[in-house]
Amino acid sequence: MIREAIYHRPKNNFAYTYDKETLHIVLQTKKDDMQTVELVFGDPYDWQADVWQSTTKPMVKTGSTALHDFWFVEVKPKYKRLRYAFICSDDQELCVYGEDGIHETPPKEIASYFCFPFMNETDIFSAPKWVKDTTWYQIFPERFANGDEQLNPEGSLAWGSAAPTTTNFFGGDFQGVINHLDHLEELGVNGIYFTPIFKAYSNHKYDTIDYMEIDPQFGDKETFRKLVKECHQRGIKVMLDAVFNHSGYYFPPFQDVLENQEESTYNDWFHLWDFPVVTEPAPNYDTFAFVSSMPKLNTENQEVRDYLLNVARYWIEEFDIDGWRLDVANEVDHTFWRDFRRVVKQANPDAYILGEIWHDSMPWLQGDQFDAVMNYPFTNGAINFLAKNQMHATDFANSISKVQHMYPKNVSEVAFNLLDSHDTPRILTLANGSLDRVKLLYLFQLSFTGSPCIYYGDEIGMDGDQDPGCRACMEWDTSKQNRDLFHYVQALIHLRKTVPLFGNGGTFRFLYADNNSHTIGYEKNDGTKRLVFLLNGGEKETSVLSSSIFEAGEKINEWTISHNEDGVS
Amino acid sequence: MIREAIYHRPKNNFAYTYDKETLHIVLQTKKDDMQTVELVFGDPYDWQADVWQSTTKPMVKTGSTALHDFWFVEVKPKYKRLRYAFICSDDQELCVYGEDGIHETPPKEIASYFCFPFMNETDIFSAPKWVKDTTWYQIFPERFANGDEQLNPEGSLAWGSAAPTTTNFFGGDFQGVINHLDHLEELGVNGIYFTPIFKAYSNHKYDTIDYMEIDPQFGDKETFRKLVKECHQRGIKVMLDAVFNHSGYYFPPFQDVLENQEESTYNDWFHLWDFPVVTEPAPNYDTFAFVSSMPKLNTENQEVRDYLLNVARYWIEEFDIDGWRLDVANEVDHTFWRDFRRVVKQANPDAYILGEIWHDSMPWLQGDQFDAVMNYPFTNGAINFLAKNQMHATDFANSISKVQHMYPKNVSEVAFNLLDSHDTPRILTLANGSLDRVKLLYLFQLSFTGSPCIYYGDEIGMDGDQDPGCRACMEWDTSKQNRDLFHYVQALIHLRKTVPLFGNGGTFRFLYADNNSHTIGYEKNDGTKRLVFLLNGGEKETSVLSSSIFEAGEKINEWTISHNEDGVS
Ligand SMILES: [Ca+2]
Ligand SMILES: [Ca+2]
Repeated sequence: MIREAIYHRPKNNFAYTYDKETLHIVLQTKKDDMQTVELVFGDPYDWQADVWQSTTKPMVKTGSTALHDFWFVEVKPKYKRLRYAFICSDDQELCVYGEDGIHETPPKEIASYFCFPFMNETDIFSAPKWVKDTTWYQIFPERFANGDEQLNPEGSLAWGSAAPTTTNFFGGDFQGVINHLDHLEELGVNGIYFTPIFKAYSNHKYDTIDYMEIDPQFGDKETFRKLVKECHQRGIKVMLDAVFNHSGYYFPPFQDVLENQEESTYNDWFHLWDFPVVTEPAPNYDTFAFVSSMPKLNTENQEVRDYLLNVARYWIEEFDIDGWRLDVANEVDHTFWRDFRRVVKQANPDAYILGEIWHDSMPWLQGDQFDAVMNYPFTNGAINFLAKNQMHATDFANSISKVQHMYPKNVSEVAFNLLDSHDTPRILTLANGSLDRVKLLYLFQLSFTGSPCIYYGDEIGMDGDQDPGCRACMEWDTSKQNRDLFHYVQALIHLRKTVPLFGNGGTFRFLYADNNSHTIGYEKNDGTKRLVFLLNGGEKETSVLSSSIFEAGEKINEWTISHNEDGVS
Repeated sequence: MIREAIYHRPKNNFAYTYDKETLHIVLQTKKDDMQTVELVFGDPYDWQADVWQSTTKPMVKTGSTALHDFWFVEVKPKYKRLRYAFICSDDQELCVYGEDGIHETPPKEIASYFCFPFMNETDIFSAPKWVKDTTWYQIFPERFANGDEQLNPEGSLAWGSAAPTTTNFFGGDFQGVINHLDHLEELGVNGIYFTPIFKAYSNHKYDTIDYMEIDPQFGDKETFRKLVKECHQRGIKVMLDAVFNHSGYYFPPFQDVLENQEESTYNDWFHLWDFPVVTEPAPNYDTFAFVSSMPKLNTENQEVRDYLLNVARYWIEEFDIDGWRLDVANEVDHTFWRDFRRVVKQANPDAYILGEIWHDSMPWLQGDQFDAVMNYPFTNGAINFLAKNQMHATDFANSISKVQHMYPKNVSEVAFNLLDSHDTPRILTLANGSLDRVKLLYLFQLSFTGSPCIYYGDEIGMDGDQDPGCRACMEWDTSKQNRDLFHYVQALIHLRKTVPLFGNGGTFRFLYADNNSHTIGYEKNDGTKRLVFLLNGGEKETSVLSSSIFEAGEKINEWTISHNEDGVS
């Protein structure tokens, strides 16, 4: 028994309030080290004749990473308070792990136990209910559809007439999106995530000039209002991109700084190091990455906070948008995000707050800041195993298990699970052109816990390398679209909506992972029935020993995901 | 090498901004497992020819618990951003630990590294500067001094004429405190923590009736104002006790609920389960512990929040108090405490917020809630080894090392380190009457990192068992006071003030712990000189091998803590 590998600490993924009655408790141990783990627990104040009253409940192994097992248990403390420890056993010995360390038997001193002091309802992580059942579609507006030639930026190229570069324009706009909502409805998605739509200089619009104005190439506020309304009529939510970490070069306050230097009233809007402020040869102020044209905003300045919080409120209250995706969210201060949440949820308690964070995001997912983050650790595993075939099946299972156990369950249920985006190569390119692998990716993504997102054009077989390659014009000529792939994705989304266990219901668990055959098996289980998925990530046909997957006598229905122009079956 | 025992996760005690330039990074490994640990780190955006630019820095082992070592390093990232991993080596092998697990060599993918995305100043944990140099004195006002016989509650007993019980009164009051401030000034303390002073029913006043009124037995608001002024004139800070988790039985809103039941306008001020609300045989509403006369306040109700936040503001703005100690702080919601911090720091940015939490308190010490918690894990170790002689020297060193590594350094520097309180037996009683052990306790407490607190009367040798025993009337007859102990504590406090390394300066580190002789050695080190402390927790004289403590040729000055009626030397 490796006692040093046992780990637990409350108030994160290891112990959290799942709902107002239920605590979830998780323990990490060395992989394959323990035979059983039990929770010993009780109310902190329940003493009889100087003896603390406790009881035990077995924990269940819910997954493993390369090095660790995770053990899970759910408890419903009558008085919403809990002290607890873990009884770990292998075939040789037993130890009891509490807040103050390891004991040979359950300690008598209550200070030795971990504490979850009170399950206050307001502290429960709580994301909008609709997110669990949403399949997103990411639109890069300059490249989705051109519906109004009159708005085209000067020098726009004919739609699809050239490869995308960092500087060219094709004239995509809101009218184009409105014109093609049928495509989205047919596919079955019910949420759009738009990359930035505010007035900016570049084609990607991440260099904001005015957060209160629509970029004129996309349309005016009335067109946007119409777009949101038409989406809502079709049951589609709308999420916008908030670039609050930094402004663009042409953001008037930054221009004022460059022009007026020490005299500028906007000097505290940025993190200036000294004067004169210069952009060349290197900026003497904080920037996004090392990009001098993207000066970092000082979100600790009250005027900046008021300005940005007003932006957050305005687009919800005036245009009824359903969520904000927060660009470079990890580099902005936590204090700002707490205020941001308060303002957003006041404007619409049902709005979704999604942070762009590529790494472990537990500090932003405590219930006081974001509802979700972009789940790149999920992406990495899926791409390496299913797209690139560069990862062992066991490593894949370990990495996905790690993602699953990284956050509380209510957090994972609304995680934004993407396979690619405007910031990465497209999945077909990552899969080296293999449509079969793209289908495997979609099957995995759309049957996994969370809120999946499809990058525009992937569903009809578009390819494209790292940006700008991945930002090509959407292919609207159906004869050039891969309709087979479209119907496959459509079928999966349909299953997600109609079979709760396929979608966000039940508990995901790996059944096995085999490095020789490159296959994995997993289940979604709701306690009464289960869906079993068998995925072959290798290049060859193989057979799987059904006795290791199914119990003797278990009733099995085999599913085929079929689809045709007439519908899904 | 036990790879499974390696642990790190950012944004808590393992990685935090110490000040606006400095990141502290800590790694846990199995005890005595690694020979060296290095940090490999760089700016997330610093790429040259597709290769991420990183450098390395050795980490230093700063302490151990029974099972683990802790390794520490400080870095000052030029652009306030960091990606990093750990290179761990024993004499056999090397491994690199990053966010996605263990690698054999430093990974090329940046996603494999841990991330500290940006060191935003507003997120840095920041407690009032004065706390580091404060030695507290805890006063239980009913029992400290009776300065106004006219205010005595009916049936008060003559001062010190009886043992304390849960219900008797002796007439302690504010005038008594004012009369005896010389005693505090002579001792050298510069902060008073008062247990509750608001209108209440019991002698301990934890069952508040009116949070806006002084309990009449203590005096009126003018007397309290005078008390605060006189304290401030002597350089003594004043901290009050906020009992916001629950009210008293006679709190008018609760009485209104009992009287008007469903019709009460205060129904949402508490956590009522159903009607009629009853107190017997068991309360049908949430309470503190199982005490029906202490109904838990619903701090999620806006009226309750407004009321309590107004209380928090009022006593700071109107009476200039310097801090709040928060009773049963862990059972109140985090959202309330975030609002509380905002209100308190608006009223006085230099006010201290101290939570009563007996267990691991990291979730409350992220910078957005408390400045400190009552450091009971410190208490437990000190009492078990130095008072009770019930712990091995190594176990003591392990437990104190654990406390030290449980929180960021800037948190530990203002931790409220107590040996006993109105809730525990007095130290002389815990030490079974041994004054020598009491002196050892004080030496350890007053030379340790943090903000120490002395419980009234301990310094003159009062004893007393678990409450009510520990709440006896202060002994003011100097012939019955232990003046030798008083002068010893006085000398230590004087050293704390005049020798920064003795007080809150430098870094605390154990030098050794020996179970045979029951001795420990530790140092406070500021990089240029060090103070070495050798404490004998056993019953017999012993000698320590100086070669294991001092380096050959190291210049040594031996100190004797002497004291007499004329002063400290
Ligand atoms: Ca256009
Ligand atoms: Ca009196």
